Amino acid sequence: MNRVYLDWNATAPLRSEAREAMLAATEIVGNPSSVHAEGRAAKSALEQAREEIAAALGAEGADVIFTSGATEAAALVLQGRGLACAAVEHPAVLAWCDSSLPTDTKGQVTVADPTRATLQLANSETGVIQELPHGLAVSDLTQAFGKTPFAFNWLGIQAGFVSAHKLGGPRGVGALVVKRGTEIEARIKGGGQEQGRRAGTENLIGIMAFAAAAKAAQNDLDQGSEEKVSQLRDSLMAALESGAEMVTFPGRESRRLPNTLSILTPGWRGETQVMQMDLAGFAVSAGSACSSGKVRPSSVLTAMGIAPERAGDAIRVSIGPTTDAGDVMRFADAWLAAYGRWRQRNDWRATAGRA
Amino acid sequence: MNRVYLDWNATAPLRSEAREAMLAATEIVGNPSSVHAEGRAAKSALEQAREEIAAALGAEGADVIFTSGATEAAALVLQGRGLACAAVEHPAVLAWCDSSLPTDTKGQVTVADPTRATLQLANSETGVIQELPHGLAVSDLTQAFGKTPFAFNWLGIQAGFVSAHKLGGPRGVGALVVKRGTEIEARIKGGGQEQGRRAGTENLIGIMAFAAAAKAAQNDLDQGSEEKVSQLRDSLMAALESGAEMVTFPGRESRRLPNTLSILTPGWRGETQVMQMDLAGFAVSAGSACSSGKVRPSSVLTAMGIAPERAGDAIRVSIGPTTDAGDVMRFADAWLAAYGRWRQRNDWRATAGRA
Repeated sequence: MNRVYLDWNATAPLRSEAREAMLAATEIVGNPSSVHAEGRAAKSALEQAREEIAAALGAEGADVIFTSGATEAAALVLQGRGLACAAVEHPAVLAWCDSSLPTDTKGQVTVADPTRATLQLANSETGVIQELPHGLAVSDLTQAFGKTPFAFNWLGIQAGFVSAHKLGGPRGVGALVVKRGTEIEARIKGGGQEQGRRAGTENLIGIMAFAAAAKAAQNDLDQGSEEKVSQLRDSLMAALESGAEMVTFPGRESRRLPNTLSILTPGWRGETQVMQMDLAGFAVSAGSACSSGKVRPSSVLTAMGIAPERAGDAIRVSIGPTTDAGDVMRFADAWLAAYGRWRQRNDWRATAGRA
Repeated sequence: MNRVYLDWNATAPLRSEAREAMLAATEIVGNPSSVHAEGRAAKSALEQAREEIAAALGAEGADVIFTSGATEAAALVLQGRGLACAAVEHPAVLAWCDSSLPTDTKGQVTVADPTRATLQLANSETGVIQELPHGLAVSDLTQAFGKTPFAFNWLGIQAGFVSAHKLGGPRGVGALVVKRGTEIEARIKGGGQEQGRRAGTENLIGIMAFAAAAKAAQNDLDQGSEEKVSQLRDSLMAALESGAEMVTFPGRESRRLPNTLSILTPGWRGETQVMQMDLAGFAVSAGSACSSGKVRPSSVLTAMGIAPERAGDAIRVSIGPTTDAGDVMRFADAWLAAYGRWRQRNDWRATAGRA
């Protein structure tokens, strides 16, 4: 049976451009810190990748500091600063901030003092995009990068961070991007790599693959992929809505990422839905993927005013540039069929209960 | 011109087995934290790699925690503990310890209280191998892993760390290995990956390539690669010694890694030698590669009692399992020719000085 992968926000399939870059990178022998020809070649490849990622981010002239991913970059820029944030942030951000900022029912966060706050550009579960206030200290750009166009230099923020694997690069590589000259104290110390801000021999293969993926994602956006992807997502939303009277889509009133759909069916556990869809050949998720298989009621949805006992009844479908209408419609059919069976069981129980 | 790469301790060329594993890994789509079939497949590949690396380390039953490299693993296990160490440690270790332990002229370190100390198994510049005292808190196993046989479970230590790229895996992945149940507090927080000890989506491609490289290195060792490599190194040492009266080899009186040769020629700057050898087609290094091209007098050599003004006159040649006798002898010829020219210039200057 052909599987359909609809969990791109957890991790995107590796782009062919990233795979090619990875293969090319395996031929580069040197350590970028070595002074001989092999080291200089590695260094030059590293710096070219840095420029390409800066360009894809619209961060020309800013500092791009490579890390092992967005989680490490978040720790690097947030730890010890006590910034304010909202409960809709990713656990890697929540670990370091004070989640006191209010979120409304549309998923929009209000920031009191931008210079002392961190706010995501887009949410991984609902896709809700925030209007970042000018002068914001830090933004988690991870889910937005490659899915919707933005330029770091135009966001008016001091720092942001991204991950390669959310846009079709490999897992285990990411970057912190900061306005040139921002003071960043290394957390991982030793060698003088990354201008003394992050020690350790650079993940050159991962970084070159990241650059290729970022460039390819940028090309996709330039060619209108956002429009195409959001049409698919909207057609899925319409199909589910017309076939399932109880369903709602948290965040739908807000501007959202084109690829993300949060689907809430009160009373039908997200975990159950994920397992049923998995058996039917579809990979979707309930809550965040980042908690080692443990599914907790989504703090994103509770922050939006959804009752805790209902916040576990959501699933997330997230698609990508290679998802096609057939994938989405087959999913809609399978989900609606499962929904119908669930409704029948529930009607029968309700009837039995009354008898 | 064919280049000869003799800087394996800075970073080893990617093994073909690692490259194959990397390619296979690019086909695995899921996030290891996702519960659907794609996620479970990724998780299963991750855990298989973990077992293979534990086996190569002789650490069956211990906990292997994946990191972005030895530098991050060092920070994870050493930060905030104030362990004692010697000045021969790598900068990634020195950043977190109190370098008060004495080193003798052979490069051997004396440890007063093993439970409050960290000591490398092998030195990256001289190859000197330490006898690790029983009950040692932490050991940097990075340079030893894959070059000389050892078993974590027989070393009698609490924790150790390694890096993939030193044995032919990719840059940007490593591991901390600790006796089962050792308390390790995450430095990079967020998701519950690595039993809550290190958050962030796992670098699956890098980890699978690491496992393949570790397995291949272990096979090489089982088939006697250490003997073969050390014979080549010793033949190089003999050739240089017979042709250059001023040369010494720091650490030669100690048991050493088979592949490493530190070459000290008083008065001839290591940097100059590295550049001349680079032009002649050979990649070797002066000091540690990890300081972004900055060559400082080696703290490893000064710790062994070599005067600071002489410690900058060393180069390191480090070879690997694919280095052959022709590579080593061509290097010996090129180096001896450069040495002869240097001696002539110096004689001329000495004569001119006297005139």
